[in-house]
Amino acid sequence: MCIDTFAKTIKHTMPTISQKGLAMPQSPIRKLMPYADAARKNGKHIFHLNIGQPDIKTPNVALEAIKNNSIEILSYSASEGFESYRNKLADYYKTNNINVSAEDIIISTGGSEALLFTMGSIADAGDEVIIPEPFYANYNGFATASGVTVVPVKSSIDNGFALPPIAEFEKLITPKTKAILICNPGNPTGYLYTKEEIEQLAAMVKKHNLFIVADEVYREFAYDGNTHHSIMSEPGLEDHAIMIDSVSKRYSMCGARIGCMVSKNKELMSTALKFAQARLSPPTFAQVAAEAALETPKSYFDDVIEEYVHRRNLLVNALEDINGVKVAKPKGAFYCIAELPVKDAEDFAKWLLSDFDVDGQTVMVAPASGFYSTPNTGLNQVRIAYVLNEDNLLKSVNILKKALEVYPN
Amino acid sequence: MCIDTFAKTIKHTMPTISQKGLAMPQSPIRKLMPYADAARKNGKHIFHLNIGQPDIKTPNVALEAIKNNSIEILSYSASEGFESYRNKLADYYKTNNINVSAEDIIISTGGSEALLFTMGSIADAGDEVIIPEPFYANYNGFATASGVTVVPVKSSIDNGFALPPIAEFEKLITPKTKAILICNPGNPTGYLYTKEEIEQLAAMVKKHNLFIVADEVYREFAYDGNTHHSIMSEPGLEDHAIMIDSVSKRYSMCGARIGCMVSKNKELMSTALKFAQARLSPPTFAQVAAEAALETPKSYFDDVIEEYVHRRNLLVNALEDINGVKVAKPKGAFYCIAELPVKDAEDFAKWLLSDFDVDGQTVMVAPASGFYSTPNTGLNQVRIAYVLNEDNLLKSVNILKKALEVYPN
Repeated sequence: MCIDTFAKTIKHTMPTISQKGLAMPQSPIRKLMPYADAARKNGKHIFHLNIGQPDIKTPNVALEAIKNNSIEILSYSASEGFESYRNKLADYYKTNNINVSAEDIIISTGGSEALLFTMGSIADAGDEVIIPEPFYANYNGFATASGVTVVPVKSSIDNGFALPPIAEFEKLITPKTKAILICNPGNPTGYLYTKEEIEQLAAMVKKHNLFIVADEVYREFAYDGNTHHSIMSEPGLEDHAIMIDSVSKRYSMCGARIGCMVSKNKELMSTALKFAQARLSPPTFAQVAAEAALETPKSYFDDVIEEYVHRRNLLVNALEDINGVKVAKPKGAFYCIAELPVKDAEDFAKWLLSDFDVDGQTVMVAPASGFYSTPNTGLNQVRIAYVLNEDNLLKSVNILKKALEVYPN
Repeated sequence: MCIDTFAKTIKHTMPTISQKGLAMPQSPIRKLMPYADAARKNGKHIFHLNIGQPDIKTPNVALEAIKNNSIEILSYSASEGFESYRNKLADYYKTNNINVSAEDIIISTGGSEALLFTMGSIADAGDEVIIPEPFYANYNGFATASGVTVVPVKSSIDNGFALPPIAEFEKLITPKTKAILICNPGNPTGYLYTKEEIEQLAAMVKKHNLFIVADEVYREFAYDGNTHHSIMSEPGLEDHAIMIDSVSKRYSMCGARIGCMVSKNKELMSTALKFAQARLSPPTFAQVAAEAALETPKSYFDDVIEEYVHRRNLLVNALEDINGVKVAKPKGAFYCIAELPVKDAEDFAKWLLSDFDVDGQTVMVAPASGFYSTPNTGLNQVRIAYVLNEDNLLKSVNILKKALEVYPN
């Protein structure tokens, strides 16, 4: 047997990867990590605007709870999470005009797991979920993992990524449509839905008998005097509304991996609990920290929000000063989508890491195309997370500006 | 409209749960929790033999690492886990005759998540995984969540749940078969596969071009001078073998929720990494604890294993003393399957919680039928976890004995 035939035989006798595995998207936030690693190994300093990892300190009350814990046997918790934590969470929601009790809450390992529980509980293979795009990129991953089809409805940078007209959603509703999924305030858009938009969504899902899943992990990050309106506060939506939440951004504790799924639909929650039981429990130490974090003083948020607004203003102004750059001013969260004068923002992002620096420093951004599910969309856009302090943020935009002046493509 | 019609209309306008969600099994380990909660509220003390939550203390070195951590921003880790932890884990595996490096390891949120990554990466909806039954009940849940069909091959209490003949597996292999899944040492059987059995499995998966997934979370718990043989140590199985691991039992830190998926198949691992990236990262505090736990002194395991062997001997002897009880003596892990002189062990388990006590104390066991995927199998069996100390274990078996004397069905 010649070597070629032998090689083919070898290949043929390897067990094969699933189609689902092949279809799993790479995270646009993390896929360029190998380029970043290589850049770092070459001595470059990288400003990370690609990932929503804030530089804000985790509240002391959460960190101290971990240091002072008296656990001797690090045991499983209840699958739905600590009862004490769920009770306090319900109180926190009540102060946010969200009237739920502990039994409406399942603690999850990050908002990520809450989304997986939700998709598994409401959709079968081939079922459809309509999502305004651009959207949080990992919704694509959770949908693929769950066998669910994402049906995008396009929002536009030209009106700051406001809710597309309800008629656009309705054009896309089929017998396979199970839910509408929104992120409010939006990652990656920074858009904060108005009360009217939330009401329109509520009316639509009631009319068409759909679930509405609202990822509200950025609830506190609403700027310029705007108020966050939760889907959970809409009357008559008890059987339809599912809220996804997380402590990651609220308390700058992304590494805790604590989130939750919230709904007043009992059948849904008892279904989701079966998914939760299969994986036993959410992490115990992190629940200790998350429960303590609820004691974070209001002043912490006042400071944090002031800081983010300051950064947003700096960032948006600096970006708008660059020739050919267009940006939608975020009303919440800590991301914005910027349109760059390039053809292929992913190539530009790679080039920033591989071939460019200003005094040994460069910038990592997330190509926005991964936040769309329509192919070949957002190709000239990037998502920028304003999670760095003023000094680093200004340095970063300056690097972007200089890069755009010399980028060859 | 009359009330009945109105009620039907209301029901009809509720969005519906998925077929997958309806099909998700309840955990046999946790499904009786409401009965236990009610018993506790009635003042009963419950000895928990239903769940593998050891009463063994977590190693100090792990707990101290958490107390002494100096984290100020609890940030995401790499999706594949701390590099430092994966390097040390690889060293640990090497001392266990498992020759892997950090790049062959993805840290997961418990062994549970490693199983989900694995199923997603190797199987599509309708694909089949063959598992000797009884098996760890949550394999059913992960399979349902992943759309994978479990094909059971029966092992028997009569030979201690040894590996069924390879011919029995081969009868079940179809073009849809993607993998064989084993748990070694076995939960719930306590069976430890011999070197010969592992070799037979290796030859079969090579011949039929399948993956073999080995859940080896009880590696250290091998008794009576028997040695654990890892699937990862088999030569020529690099593309086929996938190991699932966890710190939960090894270091009595079930609540950490840290496990890993290990394989030398590069395509598989890069596929699994996409699932890992979608959920961002495993919990940070727990990784700190798990990394530190690798420094646990050998004496800890010597003591723990001596304790488990002592408990096993006590338990098996005491159970065998009860009229009509049959038990397979475990060679590893800390579970055993016991056949009871009852028709319906689930009814008996509920009755123990609801209607029986000895001086205000009762016992919770896991009905074994949930550990089978063949319907109506193991109906007269329970899984008992010997995770309680001598005194409580003997009290528990005494309660079981007295209960069987008066159980009405």
